[in-house]
Amino acid sequence: MSIQQLFYPRGVAVVGSVSEGKLGWEVLRKIVDGGYEHVYAVNPKAQGAFSAPGFKSATEIGQPVDMAVIVAPTATVTTVLEDCGQAGVRAAVIITAGFSEVGNHAGESEVKQAAQRYGIRFIGPNCAGLVNTSQHLYPTLETHPPAGGVAVIAQSGAVGGVITAWATEFGLGISKFASYGNGADLNEIDFLRYLADDAETQVVALYIESTSKGREFMRAVRECAARKPVVVIKAGRTGSGQRATLSHTGSMAGADAVYDAALRQSGAIRVRTVEELFDLCKGFACLDPKGFGNPSGLKVAIVTNSGGPGVLAADHAEEIGLDVAEPSPAIKAKLSEFLPAHCALKNPIDLTVEGTEDSYRKTLLTVAEEYDAILALNIATPYLDSVALARGVCDAARQSGKPVAAAFLPQRIVAEAVDYLQAHGVPNFATGERAVAALTRMAQYQEFTSQAHHSERAHFASEESPSHGTETLRFAHAVSAALRRRAMGSDRSGQLLEPQAMAWLRENGIPTPEFRFAETADRAVQGCREIGYPVVMKVVSPDILHKSEWGGVKLDIRDDAAATSAFEAIQTSVIGKDFRGVMIYPMIRGAPEVLMGLARDPQFGPVVVFGLGGIHTEVLRDISLRVAPADRTEAEVMIREIRAFPILEGTRGQPPCDLDALADMLVNFSRLPFRYPEIVELDLNPVFVFSKGLVVGDVRMIREEKSNDTG
Amino acid sequence: MSIQQLFYPRGVAVVGSVSEGKLGWEVLRKIVDGGYEHVYAVNPKAQGAFSAPGFKSATEIGQPVDMAVIVAPTATVTTVLEDCGQAGVRAAVIITAGFSEVGNHAGESEVKQAAQRYGIRFIGPNCAGLVNTSQHLYPTLETHPPAGGVAVIAQSGAVGGVITAWATEFGLGISKFASYGNGADLNEIDFLRYLADDAETQVVALYIESTSKGREFMRAVRECAARKPVVVIKAGRTGSGQRATLSHTGSMAGADAVYDAALRQSGAIRVRTVEELFDLCKGFACLDPKGFGNPSGLKVAIVTNSGGPGVLAADHAEEIGLDVAEPSPAIKAKLSEFLPAHCALKNPIDLTVEGTEDSYRKTLLTVAEEYDAILALNIATPYLDSVALARGVCDAARQSGKPVAAAFLPQRIVAEAVDYLQAHGVPNFATGERAVAALTRMAQYQEFTSQAHHSERAHFASEESPSHGTETLRFAHAVSAALRRRAMGSDRSGQLLEPQAMAWLRENGIPTPEFRFAETADRAVQGCREIGYPVVMKVVSPDILHKSEWGGVKLDIRDDAAATSAFEAIQTSVIGKDFRGVMIYPMIRGAPEVLMGLARDPQFGPVVVFGLGGIHTEVLRDISLRVAPADRTEAEVMIREIRAFPILEGTRGQPPCDLDALADMLVNFSRLPFRYPEIVELDLNPVFVFSKGLVVGDVRMIREEKSNDTG
Repeated sequence: MSIQQLFYPRGVAVVGSVSEGKLGWEVLRKIVDGGYEHVYAVNPKAQGAFSAPGFKSATEIGQPVDMAVIVAPTATVTTVLEDCGQAGVRAAVIITAGFSEVGNHAGESEVKQAAQRYGIRFIGPNCAGLVNTSQHLYPTLETHPPAGGVAVIAQSGAVGGVITAWATEFGLGISKFASYGNGADLNEIDFLRYLADDAETQVVALYIESTSKGREFMRAVRECAARKPVVVIKAGRTGSGQRATLSHTGSMAGADAVYDAALRQSGAIRVRTVEELFDLCKGFACLDPKGFGNPSGLKVAIVTNSGGPGVLAADHAEEIGLDVAEPSPAIKAKLSEFLPAHCALKNPIDLTVEGTEDSYRKTLLTVAEEYDAILALNIATPYLDSVALARGVCDAARQSGKPVAAAFLPQRIVAEAVDYLQAHGVPNFATGERAVAALTRMAQYQEFTSQAHHSERAHFASEESPSHGTETLRFAHAVSAALRRRAMGSDRSGQLLEPQAMAWLRENGIPTPEFRFAETADRAVQGCREIGYPVVMKVVSPDILHKSEWGGVKLDIRDDAAATSAFEAIQTSVIGKDFRGVMIYPMIRGAPEVLMGLARDPQFGPVVVFGLGGIHTEVLRDISLRVAPADRTEAEVMIREIRAFPILEGTRGQPPCDLDALADMLVNFSRLPFRYPEIVELDLNPVFVFSKGLVVGDVRMIREEKSNDTG
Repeated sequence: MSIQQLFYPRGVAVVGSVSEGKLGWEVLRKIVDGGYEHVYAVNPKAQGAFSAPGFKSATEIGQPVDMAVIVAPTATVTTVLEDCGQAGVRAAVIITAGFSEVGNHAGESEVKQAAQRYGIRFIGPNCAGLVNTSQHLYPTLETHPPAGGVAVIAQSGAVGGVITAWATEFGLGISKFASYGNGADLNEIDFLRYLADDAETQVVALYIESTSKGREFMRAVRECAARKPVVVIKAGRTGSGQRATLSHTGSMAGADAVYDAALRQSGAIRVRTVEELFDLCKGFACLDPKGFGNPSGLKVAIVTNSGGPGVLAADHAEEIGLDVAEPSPAIKAKLSEFLPAHCALKNPIDLTVEGTEDSYRKTLLTVAEEYDAILALNIATPYLDSVALARGVCDAARQSGKPVAAAFLPQRIVAEAVDYLQAHGVPNFATGERAVAALTRMAQYQEFTSQAHHSERAHFASEESPSHGTETLRFAHAVSAALRRRAMGSDRSGQLLEPQAMAWLRENGIPTPEFRFAETADRAVQGCREIGYPVVMKVVSPDILHKSEWGGVKLDIRDDAAATSAFEAIQTSVIGKDFRGVMIYPMIRGAPEVLMGLARDPQFGPVVVFGLGGIHTEVLRDISLRVAPADRTEAEVMIREIRAFPILEGTRGQPPCDLDALADMLVNFSRLPFRYPEIVELDLNPVFVFSKGLVVGDVRMIREEKSNDTG
């Protein structure tokens, strides 16, 4: 396996000039300084540097060399790979730039082909190298970080560099680091797969700007996240081109919402900033998430020696959903046995500036009896013995077995204490607020992994449409074409008319109301009678999208006369359009209206959207979104996560909606694009939800043009 | 003026033991180490320490002593103050604890009285001291910060300590620091007033957990914020007792929302964390907010030498409302004259790792031509000359005159460059995200201060009810009593019945619909005729709060027969209750419904709430709130800031609402509690808003019990 040879090579060749000041010289120095011994320089002058001997060709080295670090000029990289391949190299780090990132796609393609010919897997080109601390292997220009359990995989070398540098400064141990640059060969998916099994890695930190194979990426994240936390920064808005291809319902949320859903559904923890990423990795590296006893509504005790920062941490904790309850009377009684009278026994528990090693130790041990996690704050002054307080905290953390985080500050005067804390497995954060934020996300991860429906999610991946890769791209183009046509009001052959669409929904188990399609006034009257008054009548025409605006909807028709005149009015109002007839439905009033939508994302394929109808989606953008399909549990969460959910639960004396039927329908609906890959866009809006059951009120479907049958 | 004597004393007495290791010894050492010379020790042993001579009494010093720092035992503080007073001391820093914070209110009261007798103003007790860097005066246990333009006022000494310690570590200059502890005498209001005029202070950083005199606090903030930025952390949820006294509409937002509104209305910038506070102070200390040319929608250029962190900064900038537009073709053309082809000329502008001092300088100068502000990112590697890049950035900042912020990272390897940046007036932030966050808040401040309606706000303060202090407390009690009664369903003498309330509203210029009050069926029919069918009929009874639930509301009554039977049905349905008659209104349908509410906050007095009716307030909590009264501009902002505002603008073919009439009414409504101080709570819900004009649909008013007339 070539990734293994990247991280654990028997020998490394640095290919390119190693003259002083050159990139190769820097890299070689980094490798030699790091303590890796089997390193050789390869360049036309056979020049060596530091302790590394020089050779003209990798084939001349005469020792096993599994990996090459390539810093040679752009134009020579292909030749270099060939030479390396002949020498038995099977993995390469191509630091050299000047390829696809500057438009040189041909050059990158040549490099890929050369590598393939020799079975060489590589990272780059245009990458910042890699690190494997357990092998003292540092073929990179970034800082040498300390060893530990966090693997950092970054599309951007600089983001990785910031993390490894902070790792050194703030005490975070790194197992492996890889920056894959242009990702011409190995990318985030390969590394996720590799790291899932890497015993040296407890936590994976990932920085991506995009992924091209959405479903494959999700699968790799899911498999890794099932075994260890995966913390992700997804940066960069997708380009305007990509955004334009998203359908109406999809674009209401934005392409970023699709990534958000995909990451969440795969069990990754998404963060927005490098600081959050760093904090969370530190938390996971020190604290076992399984230690969080009661993850939903984590009950946290804040023990401090200073009021203000304690209150700030408590405020933030409450805001992000932690439970900052006061200690029980029993615990208060225990605390008051050894704490002085001036200590506040609420939560935060304020030991005041007189808090000692012993009072920290005893207080933490006492509150550990009824809290899930503890934050120990020490706002030090220069004359305080912070190392002693750290001892108290660490003792209590060890003895109690509960997750304990610390925020000892300000920085410089507590440096020694922070080292002590982290050496003893207690993560220290820059502020109390950042500590509680990390605890919260850790608890959420634990909640996700402990959920029973994890196994249920397994079937998810298998339901995706088989020829995904190029297909979604094709679909995306189809959607954008459809939208263009719609905007122009012209031909819309991809759109199914309402009678067929309703029939098709019914065949597929989606609850539709009774309906009749009528092409004449007489038939309309007959249809109305069959449905039973009062009824609703709606125009059917391929030319008309917004029926109401055209006077194409008549509500509350109560008798035959009204039915006749409604038909005639509709016919008149759309004169000059392609009038096909009318749909007749029972009149439904007073039931809450929801919408369900399907759209195609170019990266992730079908996505499903749920929301309340009307202004809730169009104005308030109060919707939930998932990469389809949604299983039953996911559907329930989708329904509950919209802000307006209380409306569905029944407010102001209204009965609750049939949430079971709603969730069932959402699951069924979200599977349709896998049974019918020709669906490009499907909106059910509104869906009327009753206290028992539910029915679709209107449907709009766009299929791919080439295919015209519905099943 | 005593605050002047606190910060600029001619001599300082440290009163309390100065034996080695004692608090007094530490404080004295801090003062002497800081370089302040006129310091004396006062204690029973007449013991001196360091360079300070010792005396038994302050009266024996024989030199001018304006200020005393008291670290003597709790029980002796009163005597100490008397001794100091006799010696001519006029200002004191009482560090000694053991007073109201542990329930010793009597002791604190004695201290206050003693100080008053001698005209001594003081901070504390239980405070962490003060700092005046320009005088080298450090009577505090906290770190000695470097001198500069930021004043830090903190209820919590520890929060102040964190800021002053970070100031040392991350290069922020402090003018003055004061921690006022229990605030028995001087508090945040006094310091705001003082600092407004303090020439050494450019920015005020304030940490409070509460304020007792809401309106006075607002005035002090406003006067200070008009002259320099005031950055505030308001921490701590107000206690459950206080929350309970808030009225229904008020408590929907929570007491914290009142502080939020009060701070915003006063021009303060509220932040949530110490890191934000610190970043923003740094920004203001370095950059003149007047430099932000186009504050609404600040257009920012991000110049970086590394893609990833640039993208992260751009993402965050867009999320918080900055404009990260691409450079114009003209600017791109200019850039491409001197930048290599591999540089990305979008925004972020990526100079790549090859970015030099000169390319930073030229790029910044070029983009300064069309951007309001610039962020210069340098993600350094150990072999990069970051100081050179800093030079390029600083040169461009100086020459362009535009606000330039930097994020040079990671920390350690750029330390020298960061010092260079900050010495040359370019603030450096920990990450690009934090830099753009600070820029955004600075631009918002500039927008506030530059708004023309600033003068209009002046009248605001004068409208408050005169006897504010005890009165609001009284009101609060009345509200809580009223709420209790209401919960119990018993006597509600404070509540005005609908006929009187509607009449009263009309007298006060609030648009009400035509209405009739009728006590019998005959009169009801007559009233219906006068109003004109269709009408609405509603029960009037002091016993019934939720009329609909009692069957006390009949809609769409279309003729005399229906009117008679509606009256009878209402009468029957409320049998056993105190039935007074019915109100008759014209039937209004299809108009958007808003609500306006007034409530009393114990700290700030009358607050006004606006929202859309129905589920928007009750379920979605989509409301805006201000400390009353709201002027016209503020009313417009209130109306526009609810999420559902687009509904009022007209969606889905609906005409826009009469926003002018709505704003006028909101202004008028928000002034009512100043004309009628007996109003405890007033809800207009719904108010129907038409495309021309608007009317109240229902009213509920609770007045203070003692006063029974309405004007």
